[in-house]
Amino acid sequence: MQLGVLGLGRMGRIVADRSMAAGHDVVAFDVAEEAVADAADAGAEPADSISDLADRLDGDKRIWLMVPAGEPVDAALAELEAHLGSRDVVIDGGNSRFQDSVRRAESCPAAYLDCGTSGGPASAEEGFSLMVGGPEWAYEAMVPVFDAVATGPAGHDRMGAAGSGHYVKMVHNGVEYALMQAYGEGFELLADGRYDLDLEAVARTWNNGAVIRSWLLELCEEAFREEGTNLGTVADRVEGGSTGTWTVQEALEQEVPLPLIYTALAERFGSRSEGRFSRRLANRLRYGFGRHEVARND
Amino acid sequence: MQLGVLGLGRMGRIVADRSMAAGHDVVAFDVAEEAVADAADAGAEPADSISDLADRLDGDKRIWLMVPAGEPVDAALAELEAHLGSRDVVIDGGNSRFQDSVRRAESCPAAYLDCGTSGGPASAEEGFSLMVGGPEWAYEAMVPVFDAVATGPAGHDRMGAAGSGHYVKMVHNGVEYALMQAYGEGFELLADGRYDLDLEAVARTWNNGAVIRSWLLELCEEAFREEGTNLGTVADRVEGGSTGTWTVQEALEQEVPLPLIYTALAERFGSRSEGRFSRRLANRLRYGFGRHEVARND
Amino acid sequence: MQLGVLGLGRMGRIVADRSMAAGHDVVAFDVAEEAVADAADAGAEPADSISDLADRLDGDKRIWLMVPAGEPVDAALAELEAHLGSRDVVIDGGNSRFQDSVRRAESCPAAYLDCGTSGGPASAEEGFSLMVGGPEWAYEAMVPVFDAVATGPAGHDRMGAAGSGHYVKMVHNGVEYALMQAYGEGFELLADGRYDLDLEAVARTWNNGAVIRSWLLELCEEAFREEGTNLGTVADRVEGGSTGTWTVQEALEQEVPLPLIYTALAERFGSRSEGRFSRRLANRLRYGFGRHEVARND
Amino acid sequence: MQLGVLGLGRMGRIVADRSMAAGHDVVAFDVAEEAVADAADAGAEPADSISDLADRLDGDKRIWLMVPAGEPVDAALAELEAHLGSRDVVIDGGNSRFQDSVRRAESCPAAYLDCGTSGGPASAEEGFSLMVGGPEWAYEAMVPVFDAVATGPAGHDRMGAAGSGHYVKMVHNGVEYALMQAYGEGFELLADGRYDLDLEAVARTWNNGAVIRSWLLELCEEAFREEGTNLGTVADRVEGGSTGTWTVQEALEQEVPLPLIYTALAERFGSRSEGRFSRRLANRLRYGFGRHEVARND
Repeated sequence: MQLGVLGLGRMGRIVADRSMAAGHDVVAFDVAEEAVADAADAGAEPADSISDLADRLDGDKRIWLMVPAGEPVDAALAELEAHLGSRDVVIDGGNSRFQDSVRRAESCPAAYLDCGTSGGPASAEEGFSLMVGGPEWAYEAMVPVFDAVATGPAGHDRMGAAGSGHYVKMVHNGVEYALMQAYGEGFELLADGRYDLDLEAVARTWNNGAVIRSWLLELCEEAFREEGTNLGTVADRVEGGSTGTWTVQEALEQEVPLPLIYTALAERFGSRSEGRFSRRLANRLRYGFGRHEVARND
Repeated sequence: MQLGVLGLGRMGRIVADRSMAAGHDVVAFDVAEEAVADAADAGAEPADSISDLADRLDGDKRIWLMVPAGEPVDAALAELEAHLGSRDVVIDGGNSRFQDSVRRAESCPAAYLDCGTSGGPASAEEGFSLMVGGPEWAYEAMVPVFDAVATGPAGHDRMGAAGSGHYVKMVHNGVEYALMQAYGEGFELLADGRYDLDLEAVARTWNNGAVIRSWLLELCEEAFREEGTNLGTVADRVEGGSTGTWTVQEALEQEVPLPLIYTALAERFGSRSEGRFSRRLANRLRYGFGRHEVARND
Repeated sequence: MQLGVLGLGRMGRIVADRSMAAGHDVVAFDVAEEAVADAADAGAEPADSISDLADRLDGDKRIWLMVPAGEPVDAALAELEAHLGSRDVVIDGGNSRFQDSVRRAESCPAAYLDCGTSGGPASAEEGFSLMVGGPEWAYEAMVPVFDAVATGPAGHDRMGAAGSGHYVKMVHNGVEYALMQAYGEGFELLADGRYDLDLEAVARTWNNGAVIRSWLLELCEEAFREEGTNLGTVADRVEGGSTGTWTVQEALEQEVPLPLIYTALAERFGSRSEGRFSRRLANRLRYGFGRHEVARND
Repeated sequence: MQLGVLGLGRMGRIVADRSMAAGHDVVAFDVAEEAVADAADAGAEPADSISDLADRLDGDKRIWLMVPAGEPVDAALAELEAHLGSRDVVIDGGNSRFQDSVRRAESCPAAYLDCGTSGGPASAEEGFSLMVGGPEWAYEAMVPVFDAVATGPAGHDRMGAAGSGHYVKMVHNGVEYALMQAYGEGFELLADGRYDLDLEAVARTWNNGAVIRSWLLELCEEAFREEGTNLGTVADRVEGGSTGTWTVQEALEQEVPLPLIYTALAERFGSRSEGRFSRRLANRLRYGFGRHEVARND
């Protein structure tokens, strides 16, 4: 199959490479010329522009967008629009907000598939998990490419109507935050607790047969191996949070309680603020009623 | 009534002063000689030692202990023991663990009242809230003193059997942590939110008629008035936590969920740790799967 | 001062009555004719319609809207629009979303004050706490009415620009949820704990001098007095939640962690769902790894 | 190697079977005669009593206890005591509290290994994860058996001194509760959210390449496959909780915040109570200040 890949960052490049490895022909474009040249070296047909990419695709066009969520997706779709017809298929493989995907699916002249992609750059060799939303025929048409990009047939599925792929991915990420925090709490207690433990050995032992074994726990094991049992210079600051925020927002609308996911998200916020106001007030209130000494900054 | 007051720190001194103001005779002792002298200046009869204090009490002895929880209470009781009989009454007005009070009530030769005391030094003028556990006759015998030390008859009551006074006080403190944190969250959002607000004015407006008005909110108002709307140099560090810890421990045994009280306690712990391990691990894991840059300490 | 009161439910009626008691003239309208008749019996000048109410106001018009948040506010403003000029003042005293108030302030021909009102029907006699946002001159012009409707001068203040009144009220309500849950947790532990306690006596003792005394705790005391220490037939279901949801949504945007407020909101959601899916899955997973028996519904 | 296995429930039987499959000789005892007979059918040497089991072991004795935590472990050790010397090794493979293991290690005449065992009955074929605490020589002596019972050499390790094996297992279980709840929250949002999803397909897609893939997620997939996407008759009630309780208790002592693990534990408690008092009070308080209707049980 001939596939246009638009966006050749780490993730887009993996889509291109895995597709080519499975025998598909890839036409590749990115705003960074170097990225296009690199993809061409790897066997892709280079395009100069989004229009050029569209023109180079024969017959029914199949295009995989792998650009940052938000504006860039709308910009790419705007440029593609004139080239697309109802038998074409566009896939958005990025971390788009599901409401945006619903809107885009309605306005795009082609069939539109929103495709939540999990596994990250680290999964280049094994393949990704792909959660796809959109028309069934379009999903079926893309199965050969999904088979190549995912871990195989079990690594992709059509979740439902437009937006459902990114919806399921959004929830996936909310769960991911909570899992990371859950392991973090356990290791924090082990690190600060009453035994002097080798946390890499703990993680390795758990990864071999324990109920809580997982890929994230393998990444913990790797982290302790590479950084040391006390995590060396790794700082107490967690970036990111947009998909977790969306998950909580959706749950507020649906009135579904997510105490763990919310708390994991709040920990990220807390890690990025200096001098939490709530704690400063609590410190001062203890003086207010009990005349306890107030801790002060110099 | 003649009352022995053992322990003349801020709280013990208030017990002595309020009792004397109500016409009771106070015999006072503290390991700090200066504190005894000060109390004598205020009208109390000074004692040289615990034994001396006991000897100076005529008839059925009534003794109020106001010493730090734990060892000091047991030490005082050990010294008093030889002087006590079954018609005497000992009150422990400190923040003792309720299980200790149950144990002491069993071994003390006198009737033993565990008395949770709330209000703190700031309540010297208005009087305290007293939650009392122990034998009904002993509680009744002490009512004149309780009337004086509390805000009046409505400010003290017998909760139930031995230990119940400190049990109710323990739970009071758990609730207190959560209330402080709840106000703190609200003010944190106001401080970091999208309007430039005068938090003293907010607190004052709330304290005059709003559903959430309270004494703690009056202390917030005072804090903003004295420290400024941004709390000035007040640090992000909250000390204390033992009664909150006991509350959560008891709730674990009773299988009662206390998510807010627990979280408020955990915020205190978090405020006292540098470089939360769980967040450092989350930071590193984001690199593990997504090759996101790792924030590092220099 | 002459004041138009639009909306004569429990809260609007209190605005009218307290204003009249302070010597102001009230013109009153409600879609329910009976409510208008009742207000007229109490001394208000009745109006037949919103237009009629506007026409009956002499000089610069001062109108207090006390209608349900959302559509009804926009509908009332649409009808008023033709009657309003730049020297008139409209107050929205309901629980509007602050973003709506910002939008309305921009489009309303009159000066627009968003006024968060706390205290509820139970505060009819003492007066409300009023948090006001909007132009300073308009706030100043309304001070005589605010003095009447609030607990007095200390019970109202201008928070800041348009929207700030409802913003502060939104946060007030988020805090309110957390305070209710905090007291609830404490009483739940006392109710299910190891002593047989009279919770009305506990609440009364606390309300007289304890650190956690508050109006909400007085309402707890009242609840135990009226329903009994086990709360009788009161069900395990908490309605409401919109202002708490807005608070959390705003905090997500501001990246401010609100673990207690969120958890209190989530408890409400949880109280309204039957058969929490997360727990059902946990139940089943314990069979999955441990062959523990699965609890099942008949 | 000759190994005594004391306790032939599901887990003890797996220890015996996997040891025999690896070529070790097993002497087996259980208070249930049938269990002994079954093990004998499978190739073990049956013992009549604990003493008899000890007598049948030649040379340095190696004994694996797999009995319920608490009293049964102490009872077995009391009976074994007279038969044990300093060159013998006893392993406690159950879910004992780590403080008990420290105490037993001090009093046991033999070397004592506390061995946290994870994987559960479902892991019979793959082997367990074994976290071992105690003297290094004793751990080394038992490696051939650990290799057989675990997933292999990577599935067991010595964590540290006495108690550390059960300590790490305790924390493992705390993390396990949080992971289960985290997945549960995600699936609850998907089940109650805005798409009609096949949760088995979601879980399968995630298990093939997604960041959150894990063994627990495979068990979720299995649960949806066997029970249906809505989990059929599975009830909203989660049993268990002792190891999670211990984890939180230890974290309270160490002052380490565990908000997710605590919340997951509290969800279990909540699932087992009828009519949460805190919610009933919140329901009633909304009437107190706002005259909202009180939901009541019939």
